[in-house]
Amino acid sequence: MKTRKIRSLNFDIERLGAARNSSPLHLSNSKGDNIVDYVSDAERILFDPTERQCERCREKGVTPPSLEAAGPRELIYFKPETVKAAILTAGGLCPGLNDVIRGIVLSLHYHYEVKEILGIRYGYRGLSAGSAEQPVALSPDAVENIHREGGSVLGCSRGRQDVPEMVEFIKERGINVLFTIGGDGTLRGAAAVSREAKRAGHELSVIGVPKTIDNDISYVERSFGFETAYAIAQTALRSGHDEARGAPNGIGLVKLMGRHCGFVAAMASLASGDANFVLVPELKFDLEGENGLLTALEERMRKAGHALIVVAEGAGQEFFKGQELGTDASGNPRLGDIGPFLKERIGQHFSGLGLEVNIKYIDPSYMIRSAPASATDSVFCLQLAQNAVHAAMSGRTDMIVGMWCNRFVHVPIQTAISERKQLDPEGATWLAVVEATGQPLSMENKTGKSV
Amino acid sequence: MKTRKIRSLNFDIERLGAARNSSPLHLSNSKGDNIVDYVSDAERILFDPTERQCERCREKGVTPPSLEAAGPRELIYFKPETVKAAILTAGGLCPGLNDVIRGIVLSLHYHYEVKEILGIRYGYRGLSAGSAEQPVALSPDAVENIHREGGSVLGCSRGRQDVPEMVEFIKERGINVLFTIGGDGTLRGAAAVSREAKRAGHELSVIGVPKTIDNDISYVERSFGFETAYAIAQTALRSGHDEARGAPNGIGLVKLMGRHCGFVAAMASLASGDANFVLVPELKFDLEGENGLLTALEERMRKAGHALIVVAEGAGQEFFKGQELGTDASGNPRLGDIGPFLKERIGQHFSGLGLEVNIKYIDPSYMIRSAPASATDSVFCLQLAQNAVHAAMSGRTDMIVGMWCNRFVHVPIQTAISERKQLDPEGATWLAVVEATGQPLSMENKTGKSV
Amino acid sequence: MKTRKIRSLNFDIERLGAARNSSPLHLSNSKGDNIVDYVSDAERILFDPTERQCERCREKGVTPPSLEAAGPRELIYFKPETVKAAILTAGGLCPGLNDVIRGIVLSLHYHYEVKEILGIRYGYRGLSAGSAEQPVALSPDAVENIHREGGSVLGCSRGRQDVPEMVEFIKERGINVLFTIGGDGTLRGAAAVSREAKRAGHELSVIGVPKTIDNDISYVERSFGFETAYAIAQTALRSGHDEARGAPNGIGLVKLMGRHCGFVAAMASLASGDANFVLVPELKFDLEGENGLLTALEERMRKAGHALIVVAEGAGQEFFKGQELGTDASGNPRLGDIGPFLKERIGQHFSGLGLEVNIKYIDPSYMIRSAPASATDSVFCLQLAQNAVHAAMSGRTDMIVGMWCNRFVHVPIQTAISERKQLDPEGATWLAVVEATGQPLSMENKTGKSV
Amino acid sequence: MKTRKIRSLNFDIERLGAARNSSPLHLSNSKGDNIVDYVSDAERILFDPTERQCERCREKGVTPPSLEAAGPRELIYFKPETVKAAILTAGGLCPGLNDVIRGIVLSLHYHYEVKEILGIRYGYRGLSAGSAEQPVALSPDAVENIHREGGSVLGCSRGRQDVPEMVEFIKERGINVLFTIGGDGTLRGAAAVSREAKRAGHELSVIGVPKTIDNDISYVERSFGFETAYAIAQTALRSGHDEARGAPNGIGLVKLMGRHCGFVAAMASLASGDANFVLVPELKFDLEGENGLLTALEERMRKAGHALIVVAEGAGQEFFKGQELGTDASGNPRLGDIGPFLKERIGQHFSGLGLEVNIKYIDPSYMIRSAPASATDSVFCLQLAQNAVHAAMSGRTDMIVGMWCNRFVHVPIQTAISERKQLDPEGATWLAVVEATGQPLSMENKTGKSV
Repeated sequence: MKTRKIRSLNFDIERLGAARNSSPLHLSNSKGDNIVDYVSDAERILFDPTERQCERCREKGVTPPSLEAAGPRELIYFKPETVKAAILTAGGLCPGLNDVIRGIVLSLHYHYEVKEILGIRYGYRGLSAGSAEQPVALSPDAVENIHREGGSVLGCSRGRQDVPEMVEFIKERGINVLFTIGGDGTLRGAAAVSREAKRAGHELSVIGVPKTIDNDISYVERSFGFETAYAIAQTALRSGHDEARGAPNGIGLVKLMGRHCGFVAAMASLASGDANFVLVPELKFDLEGENGLLTALEERMRKAGHALIVVAEGAGQEFFKGQELGTDASGNPRLGDIGPFLKERIGQHFSGLGLEVNIKYIDPSYMIRSAPASATDSVFCLQLAQNAVHAAMSGRTDMIVGMWCNRFVHVPIQTAISERKQLDPEGATWLAVVEATGQPLSMENKTGKSV
Repeated sequence: MKTRKIRSLNFDIERLGAARNSSPLHLSNSKGDNIVDYVSDAERILFDPTERQCERCREKGVTPPSLEAAGPRELIYFKPETVKAAILTAGGLCPGLNDVIRGIVLSLHYHYEVKEILGIRYGYRGLSAGSAEQPVALSPDAVENIHREGGSVLGCSRGRQDVPEMVEFIKERGINVLFTIGGDGTLRGAAAVSREAKRAGHELSVIGVPKTIDNDISYVERSFGFETAYAIAQTALRSGHDEARGAPNGIGLVKLMGRHCGFVAAMASLASGDANFVLVPELKFDLEGENGLLTALEERMRKAGHALIVVAEGAGQEFFKGQELGTDASGNPRLGDIGPFLKERIGQHFSGLGLEVNIKYIDPSYMIRSAPASATDSVFCLQLAQNAVHAAMSGRTDMIVGMWCNRFVHVPIQTAISERKQLDPEGATWLAVVEATGQPLSMENKTGKSV
Repeated sequence: MKTRKIRSLNFDIERLGAARNSSPLHLSNSKGDNIVDYVSDAERILFDPTERQCERCREKGVTPPSLEAAGPRELIYFKPETVKAAILTAGGLCPGLNDVIRGIVLSLHYHYEVKEILGIRYGYRGLSAGSAEQPVALSPDAVENIHREGGSVLGCSRGRQDVPEMVEFIKERGINVLFTIGGDGTLRGAAAVSREAKRAGHELSVIGVPKTIDNDISYVERSFGFETAYAIAQTALRSGHDEARGAPNGIGLVKLMGRHCGFVAAMASLASGDANFVLVPELKFDLEGENGLLTALEERMRKAGHALIVVAEGAGQEFFKGQELGTDASGNPRLGDIGPFLKERIGQHFSGLGLEVNIKYIDPSYMIRSAPASATDSVFCLQLAQNAVHAAMSGRTDMIVGMWCNRFVHVPIQTAISERKQLDPEGATWLAVVEATGQPLSMENKTGKSV
Repeated sequence: MKTRKIRSLNFDIERLGAARNSSPLHLSNSKGDNIVDYVSDAERILFDPTERQCERCREKGVTPPSLEAAGPRELIYFKPETVKAAILTAGGLCPGLNDVIRGIVLSLHYHYEVKEILGIRYGYRGLSAGSAEQPVALSPDAVENIHREGGSVLGCSRGRQDVPEMVEFIKERGINVLFTIGGDGTLRGAAAVSREAKRAGHELSVIGVPKTIDNDISYVERSFGFETAYAIAQTALRSGHDEARGAPNGIGLVKLMGRHCGFVAAMASLASGDANFVLVPELKFDLEGENGLLTALEERMRKAGHALIVVAEGAGQEFFKGQELGTDASGNPRLGDIGPFLKERIGQHFSGLGLEVNIKYIDPSYMIRSAPASATDSVFCLQLAQNAVHAAMSGRTDMIVGMWCNRFVHVPIQTAISERKQLDPEGATWLAVVEATGQPLSMENKTGKSV
């Protein structure tokens, strides 16, 4: 990210008003008493934790950009007994949704003694006046075991709803704290609801818990469900590898999530240790030509007799240029289906060479999305949930709970959605992929002419 | 960690000499060409990535402490064809050992074309003159599938060996790069070998990959195998919880790893979401008395009818004061066995109250240590291995590869072992535990009188 | 089993009366219409399905012993609307309890439209007048997801209750169908309740679903939870094996369930493929002496450098002769703890030989008992449950649902508990163990003198 | 199966000659000595283990059809030192292939001290004169850990080879025992090789280990890999169910293996407990019309708001009548792809009704085929392997090792492949499915007119 860009970013968190109520958490304010401490509003994490950046700021005499630390505050905004909270999950399934719901409910109930917690059914749809599905009451009993299962007990949906109508619904129900668990689109909706509530004079804290199985939200080092996702993807890669080794001239081809970024593909490939080619949206590749994938694959097959190719769903979209693919229910442009496309092109190529190859194509998408959270993700979801509740109770709004330098932080929604996070094709993760696979540093032909 | 302490720390990495050979990796030096970049020696990660620290240094006009970034260098020290590398694993088993071994072998072989790689059997024992077990040759073929399995293909052992004897062995074999994968004791050994080699005039790069299933090595945000460990521990907690719920007045009691720190216990408890009491070495607790564990447990049992207690093996050692427990094969003091101790004391307590309780005691230790690495740990191990190889080839020595602010870094061994990492009893992880369990903020009686 | 013994067995199932009501299942009675058929009362499975047995009966002109096939009958005894059913689980936890509960509830509700189904808490304890825990209503909604989790939603308990008191409770509540899921002791209780109800003139069908993680109930080829049990035990063996290989002279020692029989130990060892010695209650063994375990183990260690020993908890009880061990809550004699005993004796033995061995002892008991059912067991539990319901609705009582020759059958409780099932030390399973481990055909010294 | 059919079946096993050599296994021949016994040639398992069948034979004075029991014989045909064995795996991958290979190698090596064991690469292809891939030597070391992984270390292939050419290859190499692990086609090949060897005067025992992930080989109660297959399929169904519940009007649609039979679909559905419709090749169904699937699905959606449909790949092939689909590499007719077909038709149907449904389609095929064997299957594979070796050493040929009434038996290849095993649409398994799903007993319209 360019320095100028960072400078212009806003990391200030909006608040409903001054926090004047004492927290019921009874934590400590002093170091050394072995009692957990409140977090101070002055605690901030550097956006760029390098010596270089710190020195540069020292030279220029400026304060480096930083993000506010998350955590429980000694003074909170809401009187707990006045809080009526609501939770919704939107978009597609992602491992950990139930963990986050459970964590929010338990934290509201036990830590802040909030008694009214509503579960909104099927995302924003459940906030629309005409929704067939009424909110459900959420209590510790109701959520006791939900973290053991995949999916979302509240249900998700895609698509947009009328913002003033939703705020009207929120107002009528007396909801003053809203947790929205979802991706890019959901966060845009959350920001709109927050603004509209303000306009309509309804005091409402809107806190987002960013959900993106692709791991593509900025200022969020890692999103929940992501580690579970690539863990299950790893088993798909293992299948692809074992199938490839189990047949003469076998080629395993696995398509993974990642519309705009290759994080799942990259991490699953590193986890598997068996991938030979990883194709991601961040790096264009050619099929034919000296540097092209097919040439490199041919060499691999002649040398080793089998290969494993991992492709992110958003990779190679340049091959579908000119095709009218339309948009999905969330309004996102539909992608060309790179998996079957590659399967066909690879088959044609080797068939043309007179070499019989056995291509096994695997698309584990829904088996990943619906999985229960891994242990790591369960911990992460729980901490996101607890910090989301602390943020809401402190009167913050229009923000998400993120993670930066391994610490939980607050990020304004506008900043978080200002651009999509992508793999740095010159950075450490991609280096590891290139080293682990042995694939060419670039699979684009010099002329840049795509085939 | 106190500021004074940090100031006095040495984060400078020792080198065998100037790096004058070109890396055979053919990476890039320029941003924007979509080719992975070499890492510059000037790239350093702040020890304390907070705004406060940066401001403080600005005020004082000093450079803040920082750690050198890991990664491939453009200029390396060794001519690859002159490298003879050796790898050893020491201490107890830990998930990921085979992943690290494999990663080092593949990186040496494919990236630097190092042809001679020895696997030393059973830790330092295999470097002693009289070892029954000769080193084995390691090649990509030999390590192809080892990452799919737990344990260590090289074997581990505890105990110390004569340092000059080991250096003599190393010298005789012409080994000039040594990777030691192990914990505290192993790292001390690695430092001693590095110094002795220097003294003996044998050019040797010694690179440690820190292994601690307890996650207690300083300047290493997270150690490999740790996430796998608490993932499996989570299933033990689930068993404990289900057993507790499945019997009248059931109490699940699970002992987990952690001689000096409660990381595994804390994270497994957060992952499970079902723990009611987490006992760790960092926080003393009383059994009897107003604040004591038994009082809190009694209340829990009366209210809920079942409970889950998680105890780190190093917790409550004050109850064994005065007992002569001796030392283990690694020379560590033996701990009092807190699990059976608690089981007995809890049984006595409720028996004294006339309340029949069903205590189910679970000790999953070896089932955790011998597990294959989880996907997350596999990725981590691979990157540790790759960075260890880059560090060795660059001529660094007497250091470990660690992780800080989510980046791979170099840490001098002396610094890494200067003190053990522990849970901050006033920090974010312990806050999450306290919030998730609802256990008292302190289970010590005010008078501090232990029972 | 001796022929005389079999002849004297009673395989007749007791019935409350003639079945005169039409089944609401609307199945078919004719072959060839592609509609599922009712099962005829005349369908019987041979006790001994060998040609020899059939020929022998032909010669003697007698009908060979056989078991009644389970399944839905065209005519049933109860009018569904008059049924009030209750379900209880007793003894220790076992994988699949929730599957059986769920299967019974769904079958009663959907197939026979039974509307009143009670869940009795904590086994027979919940049928006693003074029970603190009242029965809970069970419905499809209440059991929707319980099969995904281990444990028992109803809770289990050990210990005996007053039979007339329980029948009084049953009568007062109007319960006329009782499903008892439990082992040997539970089945004895079920038989007693059935008889007492008859005596007291209360019409009651008592159907047992045999639960024994040890797999030791006669006329039940395989008990639910057993396959899950040895699958998890397999992972413990893998840990033991990897620990053994990971240390110099490593010995893995794993204790598994099996008070009177070695089925779990045998099958887990076959599944692991890595066990070297399997010790079971059915076969005495000596420690010392020419044929003794220690001698064989010594040889193994000298040859291979590592070993894996699997011991059933009931093996080697002769080593504890003369010790007063008392009885447990279920009234079973407590066993000597063979695991730590062997660990100590093996340690002493090698210590005496001056050979340092590393013994890693694993006891995975509760992690096995509390596991959710495997896929195979889930199917099995579901079919047991469905057949238990069919049996109850047909007016049968004092029986269990078993499996014989891969078919579901009815077995009178008295017959099922007439003797415990054990491994045949001369049969196919033990042959496979002996072949897979390479252990001596006998580890008893010729003189039979135990050490 | 019709009685006439059974009568005409041949259950006699072909032998190379009289068994005159003593077995080196040193087992026992007498009951009661607690030493494992040899199996007698007279031990036979009834084809139909019902009382009815036994009575019928008694009336008619005939011996009922029966299968020879498998197991070690006291007298064997081959002198072990003269045996040169070969193993091949053919067809597609199936969980357990490596377990069977390992079991055969270990049994040959340790039990019969056979020293020469060849692994044939890529099925029959590796027996053809021009094969690029030479056989590999198999030893206990080579197969030590292969059972922990999926796939086949030997590789599989489809397609036919010239039989005399293969026999020539076998003869030249001096192979006299051949184990073929594969399905229908592989068994036909095995029978042809056995006959051709006899014709060519080369003494050769050919023993088949039936491999069919579909579980469709006759006289084989259960095939290896089948339980693993439906266990993994169960997780796909769980995903389908959670996806269905997680979206408004969600429909999970999972396609499973089963070209000619619905065993995997049926058992996975029973294991999941969440399936609402199971479609199998054995039962035709209509889409439209009163009884059609779409009508039933519509009702389900209106009532419950979500549904899970499981379809075997061979179901509904009547919808593809008239389409030219060709054959695959094994020469099997290609099937119409019922998964996408149903997805489209269901989408159209609800779209026509103005009801938005969310269909999530899952095809886990390769993730199932390449999985490592479950514990149950590992045991089963091991016993199949051991019994295959015993059969070969006893001089039997042209047979497979099967399982009947829970016992291992010998079946002539011709008999085993005489017809495909299918689900009995009127039997116990399908009853359980109908009961568990609540789906209509028939989804064919009365007129039988398909839509």
